[in-house]
Amino acid sequence: MNFSEYYNANKDRFIKEWSDFLSFKSISTDPAYEKECEECALWVKAQLEKLGGVAELLRGNGRPVVYGEIPGDTSKPTVLFYGHYDVQPVDPIEKWLTDPFTPTLKDGRLYARGAQDNKGQVTYFLKALEALKALGISTPPFKVMIEGEEESGSTVLQENLSQWKSRLHADILMVCDTGMLTSNSPTITMGLRGMVSVEFKVKGPRVDLHSGMYGGIVKNPAQAVCDIVAKAYNPDGSVAVPGFYEGVVDPAPEDRAMSAKLPINIEHIESHLGVPLAGGEVNYSVVERRGFRPTLEVNGIGGGYQGEGGKTVIPSSAFVKLTSRIVLGQDPEHVLKSIIAHFEKNAPQGTTIEVVDSSAVGGALQLSTRSPVIQKVTDSIVRAFGKEPLFMWEGASIPLVAALKDASGAEPVLVGFGLEEDLIHAPNESFSLEQFEQGYRYVTSFVSSL
Amino acid sequence: MNFSEYYNANKDRFIKEWSDFLSFKSISTDPAYEKECEECALWVKAQLEKLGGVAELLRGNGRPVVYGEIPGDTSKPTVLFYGHYDVQPVDPIEKWLTDPFTPTLKDGRLYARGAQDNKGQVTYFLKALEALKALGISTPPFKVMIEGEEESGSTVLQENLSQWKSRLHADILMVCDTGMLTSNSPTITMGLRGMVSVEFKVKGPRVDLHSGMYGGIVKNPAQAVCDIVAKAYNPDGSVAVPGFYEGVVDPAPEDRAMSAKLPINIEHIESHLGVPLAGGEVNYSVVERRGFRPTLEVNGIGGGYQGEGGKTVIPSSAFVKLTSRIVLGQDPEHVLKSIIAHFEKNAPQGTTIEVVDSSAVGGALQLSTRSPVIQKVTDSIVRAFGKEPLFMWEGASIPLVAALKDASGAEPVLVGFGLEEDLIHAPNESFSLEQFEQGYRYVTSFVSSL
Repeated sequence: MNFSEYYNANKDRFIKEWSDFLSFKSISTDPAYEKECEECALWVKAQLEKLGGVAELLRGNGRPVVYGEIPGDTSKPTVLFYGHYDVQPVDPIEKWLTDPFTPTLKDGRLYARGAQDNKGQVTYFLKALEALKALGISTPPFKVMIEGEEESGSTVLQENLSQWKSRLHADILMVCDTGMLTSNSPTITMGLRGMVSVEFKVKGPRVDLHSGMYGGIVKNPAQAVCDIVAKAYNPDGSVAVPGFYEGVVDPAPEDRAMSAKLPINIEHIESHLGVPLAGGEVNYSVVERRGFRPTLEVNGIGGGYQGEGGKTVIPSSAFVKLTSRIVLGQDPEHVLKSIIAHFEKNAPQGTTIEVVDSSAVGGALQLSTRSPVIQKVTDSIVRAFGKEPLFMWEGASIPLVAALKDASGAEPVLVGFGLEEDLIHAPNESFSLEQFEQGYRYVTSFVSSL
Repeated sequence: MNFSEYYNANKDRFIKEWSDFLSFKSISTDPAYEKECEECALWVKAQLEKLGGVAELLRGNGRPVVYGEIPGDTSKPTVLFYGHYDVQPVDPIEKWLTDPFTPTLKDGRLYARGAQDNKGQVTYFLKALEALKALGISTPPFKVMIEGEEESGSTVLQENLSQWKSRLHADILMVCDTGMLTSNSPTITMGLRGMVSVEFKVKGPRVDLHSGMYGGIVKNPAQAVCDIVAKAYNPDGSVAVPGFYEGVVDPAPEDRAMSAKLPINIEHIESHLGVPLAGGEVNYSVVERRGFRPTLEVNGIGGGYQGEGGKTVIPSSAFVKLTSRIVLGQDPEHVLKSIIAHFEKNAPQGTTIEVVDSSAVGGALQLSTRSPVIQKVTDSIVRAFGKEPLFMWEGASIPLVAALKDASGAEPVLVGFGLEEDLIHAPNESFSLEQFEQGYRYVTSFVSSL
């Protein structure tokens, strides 16, 4: 029996177990789901034990980290696999066509929150390990770390990594939390942006006020927040926050040249999204803006009356939730400080700024196409798919990858099978069975090549 | 028995009936409360019938208007009384110390949504009429109109006023929906600002997007709404929307001079609100900014993630609810068109503007201190309170007063007993028994003088 035959013989069970994983409401950003995260972590731990591993829950001040070691041939390089069992919130819930935690198979795609990010990709990795064991293939020793706070800043891992560092030593850091540039084109991610997040509350009068009685005499916090946010951008789309771009390393000429040749179909993306790709800095190409340039995005804004109809108030406060994606050379702490300073400096008289929450989540990562491990991945993809992989610079962040690279001493290998149409972080997230099978195929090929 | 003795003998019942009125959740801006509005209207109708009136519910496309005629001495000037039974929404509900629809008497104040605006002031008017009848005082014929959409644009009245006009003919248009400049200082309101309201939706990508994958390449609607709102104001606090100030009539020199002498304690207001009065146009005084200058205020803004913690999305859309208070000379329709044009013109590439809702609610009103009716009100206040009334130019709007003035041919008399600490439109609205009694005293004095 080969890997493909094993897959077909067990496919229904794979989907069943993937669906079980997806049924946990493991939303890490909302304290209401703490218990669901705990139950989900225990479920993952049991999966590692089924693969012959010794697993435990590592604890800190937050959601537990599932950690397991699966013995293997110690003459092979040790692989540290990193993934996450937590998922993004589901709102706006009214836009979901099926319940986000009742996985639904439709037209070859499984719909659920986390279907791809990251439960789907973790599942094909686990199923590939199962197949390797079942078919008696010699595998390297595995250290598997599935955390529960990737979507909320990886606090527990960030805070305890130095303490757990000794056991994490490895040669290869394997991550399946990225995507393909186009359908059926295995893609090696060569870079990830880092991230910084901050939430501000712009505070005004003690209570909401009547906008007739106080309109034109009291500074409106909802207008103030608009003004401060607007001042954070230049007319050319660049970020106007002083110090924001400090240290930014421009891409190497060969990377820039390679990125310009990537098969990105802008018309296709625009038609899929329903808008032109008109965001960001006008002086950079789409690929450069996404892969090599930092951003500052509003993820949420609110203040005053939110219901149907109107209410003639001056709100007592307004909030804005921001994240910044940072690139090689930027210091997360410095970027965070710069954004906070921008808000504090621009708060108009009659308002005050409260930093509700802030996190210098992590720095950016950039790999070299010349590394032997990247060469090995390339070969195993050619063998399994009959074609060369694509290389890409990702706009998203996996905050912990840079930190885990340092802690483990391992070289990162970032190959994932996500596609735009998976709609991760949005309503109706899904992952096709085809993508799932491709992930399985890659993992079995790469691991057996080690 | 005089008016004061009648008040004291019936005070507990007055409070009980006022509380009954306040128990109806008659929020007109939210369709969920349509039935409560209907029940509240029927309750008001019954009150007019108890006063010997013939009452009915006038209907249009919205909440019913309670209309009743109470016969009186036809040799006296006919009085049209205008008030409203609808109230503002109650959110943020978590800031209320007591349930907004369970009226609670504490330290001489009755707490409930509508305690002052306008149920409290309507109630003292009705109780004054009851006293006049009970004590056998000859009264003028009364036409009483208590509408149910003052807080949501008075649509039914605006749409049907021409049709109902014939029966509304009157000499005096009496309104008790205003306030006093300071405690225990009966105040005649000489002006009201008009109002325009509009809600925009700034639409971007088809769905919420991952802010890592699409950050810096897709235009963020939450940032776009901030930018458009920010562009609506000049650095001096004036409104930057082209055409906005067209037609504004500056106050007459004597009004401006009189307004400068008003006993407004700015330090007291600032300490009460917890902020300096730093909003609006820097080149005008607080009194001028409130009474004679138009405003544009954000009443609500929202987009993207609203829950606890963070969510790394680019929202597919963002909204903003705005109202503009307009002054003498401004055309509501023109102001509305100017604001809509500003939004449409400034929508960045990659976004589109939807006008969710808009209403040219009504124009401003300005009276003359030289009118005989104003003189009669002044005299009756001197008689009842032993002191001269104050005159003021109100920042708020009672959208229908200008329209009712035109429809009825009556001269407006705007005297009300609201105070800042009543917190109308905000959590913990209240009205003191002292203010309530002052209102009763004014109505009995003024009506018996006619």
